Amino acid sequence: MQAFYSPTRIIAGDGAVAGAAGLIQKFGKTALLVTGKASARVSGALDDVIRVLKANGQDYALFDRVGPNPSVETVFAGAAFSIEHKCDFCIGIGGGSPLDAAKAIAAFAAETPKKEDVFLHIPKIALRLVAIPTTAGTGSEVTQYAILTNDQEETKTSIASDALFPALALLDPRYTVGLSVETTVNTAIDALSHAAEGMLSVKAGEITDALAIDALGLISSRFSALRAGEFTEDDRRALLLAACLAGQVIANTGTTAVHALGYSLTYDRHIDHGRANGLVMGAFLRAVEAKSKRSVARILRAMRLKSTEDFCVLLEDLFGKVSLTDGEVSKYARKAAKTKNMKNLIVSLNEEELSGILTASRAGGAYGKVW
Amino acid sequence: MQAFYSPTRIIAGDGAVAGAAGLIQKFGKTALLVTGKASARVSGALDDVIRVLKANGQDYALFDRVGPNPSVETVFAGAAFSIEHKCDFCIGIGGGSPLDAAKAIAAFAAETPKKEDVFLHIPKIALRLVAIPTTAGTGSEVTQYAILTNDQEETKTSIASDALFPALALLDPRYTVGLSVETTVNTAIDALSHAAEGMLSVKAGEITDALAIDALGLISSRFSALRAGEFTEDDRRALLLAACLAGQVIANTGTTAVHALGYSLTYDRHIDHGRANGLVMGAFLRAVEAKSKRSVARILRAMRLKSTEDFCVLLEDLFGKVSLTDGEVSKYARKAAKTKNMKNLIVSLNEEELSGILTASRAGGAYGKVW
Repeated sequence: MQAFYSPTRIIAGDGAVAGAAGLIQKFGKTALLVTGKASARVSGALDDVIRVLKANGQDYALFDRVGPNPSVETVFAGAAFSIEHKCDFCIGIGGGSPLDAAKAIAAFAAETPKKEDVFLHIPKIALRLVAIPTTAGTGSEVTQYAILTNDQEETKTSIASDALFPALALLDPRYTVGLSVETTVNTAIDALSHAAEGMLSVKAGEITDALAIDALGLISSRFSALRAGEFTEDDRRALLLAACLAGQVIANTGTTAVHALGYSLTYDRHIDHGRANGLVMGAFLRAVEAKSKRSVARILRAMRLKSTEDFCVLLEDLFGKVSLTDGEVSKYARKAAKTKNMKNLIVSLNEEELSGILTASRAGGAYGKVW
Repeated sequence: MQAFYSPTRIIAGDGAVAGAAGLIQKFGKTALLVTGKASARVSGALDDVIRVLKANGQDYALFDRVGPNPSVETVFAGAAFSIEHKCDFCIGIGGGSPLDAAKAIAAFAAETPKKEDVFLHIPKIALRLVAIPTTAGTGSEVTQYAILTNDQEETKTSIASDALFPALALLDPRYTVGLSVETTVNTAIDALSHAAEGMLSVKAGEITDALAIDALGLISSRFSALRAGEFTEDDRRALLLAACLAGQVIANTGTTAVHALGYSLTYDRHIDHGRANGLVMGAFLRAVEAKSKRSVARILRAMRLKSTEDFCVLLEDLFGKVSLTDGEVSKYARKAAKTKNMKNLIVSLNEEELSGILTASRAGGAYGKVW
């Protein structure tokens, strides 16, 4: 049995926001704009949105206080702000953090849970959401996930609900042109991990595989640009589309061990999410290859790579290795082994094997010898 | 700019109907079941649906009067029947005809247009619809189109509205196991034409291309089964999924000249829809190839075929040729040239060129020499 659900309407291309003016007009009188400090402004996306809202005769209230790895407090503040300004719908602009925050805010503005129930509560309703990515990575614009910092569990935890699917995703590659090389590489490899993990999920199916293979093809066709750190407009277009396709994939497949391990690197060691995934993905793919050669061969083929060694070399070129103490290795492996992400993986990897992936990923660790 | 919208939740695999019992339960108290005379019963789908409804404690009313190429009269009768039985949602079971009729009935039961406005009226609301295909062809289970016989224009005309997207598509390949060879071949080639025409549409994009290429790969991997007229369960599974993927494609790209020409063959000459498409698709692809070699090369590559000649040979093996008078050729070309489908095509084909396709497709016509 396979299932596929991707209800977000996607409009992609230069001028996508202006092109969607008619759709946005139908969403209500007052928009809540959710952004971070910088990218919505710097990218030009916020200006484009405000221009459309004004031309449409719609009001807006701007909540621009979303930081990286958004907290529960931020989301509650945003929901209160939305209620105060009587917003009818929400427009999130930014990378994964503002978009995830926008989703949770849109839900909590419609129905506010108790603070202690945030990670138990499954939102049933939410303000309608327009998602405008300014990075090409998370795919948050087409998923039902809002990933928030969970201080109690010392990790990042996702809230998942069909109510969180954005109604509309507007993908304008021009908003990603000014991204730093580091952000571009980190987010591209995040999208790559979504597509690869999606193909290794027990929930994968024909549709998710088709989208994942296409995403891997698009990203791998930009491997040399990622290595060189120079991006044409066409590279930007390809990476933004790939991130969106990969988002549609994980909306249906979930993620697996890479994300389970990566979350600890981000929470504990403040390593950017995409880089965290990139640091462990090579050893992960080798570990899966040892148990299911054929599954990994399909992924390599889609990336036009000959071997997992080649993939490990690429990732090490992009990200280097990470320094990890033995204590960190066992702590992160223990934590990852308990996540629901691990149940998605087509092969089983126990705590020891997860430790092996981290050991191979750390400075001095050899990808070639996982355990 | 590219757009993609495919809001239907898809569940595919043996036992899909039983697997969706919880989802169906949420749709309301009384279901309107829309079927044709035979396939819903013969396939076992109707029994499965009734079993789920009973277990869920839901009522139903059965409207089983949909014939091939459904008429406006049938749709109005179904809508009146639904209103009479106070149905809350609709379950369509069957090939393209019952599914298309179910969509129009679900819309007209919610808001009944004047009979003379049927093809002008764009439905804004509709009963929620569950679509259960018993053929692997139209992809109607994931499109917003309801194609009805239009006696005034002497053709088939589609009603299109986002309100017509089924909420849920349940794909159980076991329902297609008993299909005749003829129906299997005709519907498979209908799906093939959706994928190929979708790739040649001005509205094609990254996502539709990924799905279309996958659909072409799935169908072409069954070319020998289609030629032999013998199908394994795995063939059935592949063809049903391919038809669904191709449906997602045309929901976004529309169809082009093949469908524009095929509708006349069906209306006027009572040639089954899939066969009608298959009869003209070889010459069509050659005509497009003459203007955009690269576009057609991508389609051939996805089908793992070397040339349009090979494709023409395959289609002629499956369908033979059609006898057409000169008068029919010019009538059908004239009619096709006026359709909105032609505006979707990436190259322009005028009336004379459409005549050329029909001439090459008729008995004695050579695919090799279109004009």
